Amino acid sequence: MELQRRIIDGEGEFLLFALTPPRQTASEEKAQEIADVTAQRLQPLGVDGLILYDIDDESDRNPEERPFPFLPTMDPADYLSRYFDVGNTPVVVYRAVGKYAEPDFAAWLQAQEPERRLSVFVGAASRDTPVATSLGRAQELRARNRPDLLLGGVAIPERHARNGDEHLRLLRKQEAGCSFFVTQVVYDVTAAKNLVSDYRYECRARGVPPASIVFTFSVCGSTKTLEFLRWLGVDVPRWIENELRYADDTLEASFEYALAAARELITYCRRLGVPFGINVESVSIRRAEIEASVELAARLRDELHRPDDGARLTR
Amino acid sequence: MELQRRIIDGEGEFLLFALTPPRQTASEEKAQEIADVTAQRLQPLGVDGLILYDIDDESDRNPEERPFPFLPTMDPADYLSRYFDVGNTPVVVYRAVGKYAEPDFAAWLQAQEPERRLSVFVGAASRDTPVATSLGRAQELRARNRPDLLLGGVAIPERHARNGDEHLRLLRKQEAGCSFFVTQVVYDVTAAKNLVSDYRYECRARGVPPASIVFTFSVCGSTKTLEFLRWLGVDVPRWIENELRYADDTLEASFEYALAAARELITYCRRLGVPFGINVESVSIRRAEIEASVELAARLRDELHRPDDGARLTR
Repeated sequence: MELQRRIIDGEGEFLLFALTPPRQTASEEKAQEIADVTAQRLQPLGVDGLILYDIDDESDRNPEERPFPFLPTMDPADYLSRYFDVGNTPVVVYRAVGKYAEPDFAAWLQAQEPERRLSVFVGAASRDTPVATSLGRAQELRARNRPDLLLGGVAIPERHARNGDEHLRLLRKQEAGCSFFVTQVVYDVTAAKNLVSDYRYECRARGVPPASIVFTFSVCGSTKTLEFLRWLGVDVPRWIENELRYADDTLEASFEYALAAARELITYCRRLGVPFGINVESVSIRRAEIEASVELAARLRDELHRPDDGARLTR
Repeated sequence: MELQRRIIDGEGEFLLFALTPPRQTASEEKAQEIADVTAQRLQPLGVDGLILYDIDDESDRNPEERPFPFLPTMDPADYLSRYFDVGNTPVVVYRAVGKYAEPDFAAWLQAQEPERRLSVFVGAASRDTPVATSLGRAQELRARNRPDLLLGGVAIPERHARNGDEHLRLLRKQEAGCSFFVTQVVYDVTAAKNLVSDYRYECRARGVPPASIVFTFSVCGSTKTLEFLRWLGVDVPRWIENELRYADDTLEASFEYALAAARELITYCRRLGVPFGINVESVSIRRAEIEASVELAARLRDELHRPDDGARLTR
């Protein structure tokens, strides 16, 4: 319950690790193998929680060709209940709510145990996408039937750079029940700081305590992965793109960049008094990138202020 | 000649301090007093050079109301020759070339001593401005008649953010004789890094050594000064605007920000192998802001790698 407590108390300083479920085409044996290897790999990290993404075909959001083909993945809730044994580690289960008929969604909500589960509801990728359940309706269902399940929302610094109102969206989501926010992968630190800053001062003006903002980082082992991040809507500043493109070791360069970016945001949020979490996302299925992601999470874990820091050192 | 040598040899790591000449309406006594006070204030700094701006009414560049009224200032070359005794310190004299008839401009060029003077030619603020001498023509005159006078050009990271081709402009100016570039005040470090990065890799692709890029920093004591910077075309990221707006001490906050921004760019340029200079501009005539500018320059002087660093410490 440490994660939930840190969110509720506005303490922040927690570490998450985010995964995408295996492909729908994976056999039961394969899914089980992936789940076991993943659980084993993450066990020594001591994360405060995991994130399981709910991948939707977002081709209606972006007309450009997808650098990687869309391959449907297992439903994160199914993967979690059938294969992925994470013990008592809390899991934030993403829900692309538009995919689910309301009764199914309501039943899923009902079955969740708030001490082990949290959720992030994601709305439609574009206004033209037909939805079975809208984001607003999903939020209502949770507020009515499962208010003890901690709910998060997505925060998109890139949208703030374009429209300047993402901080107001966050506050609307907060009114609808969100108690934390998760960004997509952050490459543009300035855009993230701009959003956090506007959010902070708007909270102050309204007398509302700021919710935890979880910043997502990832390593990137190739320019193809970089293109994919771009396709997903991640703004990658030119200088970073150049660094990665011309680096002798793209993976290593992206690791160093992610570490520096995370440290900058950590320092900034502490100074501003905005609670934050760190999320490391493994975007690739290449072994070297997965291992670098785990290493990145371990390094970032050491950056967080935790009351047991002394205890960990002397143990 | 140390400044000129550092530019020619591509060493960078030099410090400039930039001033605007007094108003045209200032009496001779007043102008002399300003010049003497300024020279005295700057003397202990040990800068490598000074910049004197040539202020043009840029209202045709920006249709919005100017936060401060435009007050014509003295011609920097006149101010320098009549009042401002800087000893042997090299001075970079800006020339808004469009203001000068060709014969006058050519005569001025002829009279310059390259061991004590450098120049930056600035073109028209907009395409609709009628010019007496175009930037291209001014560059030609210098190349033909005064090629030993080191010439700089302006570098605008904000234009790179919009058009993505500022690095190509720099290379064209380099072909036209420029051996260094000076930015306007930098608030958006990412935009500056993006420009430097694209410039660096384009130089490499062409086999051209990169010229020194001089980054300009200033303190900002009030939101009015901030608005003025905006009006001049400086992109101030939201988070910095908020920091300055809500700071207990705007001047102090801007000082810390400028220091951090300069350090980040210094580290970045060294890593990338792009020679750089630092320029501190005093944008306000308020005493506290001028003193903070001098202090900022002193702090940044200590950040530069100079062969006499050891000697300075033991002297």
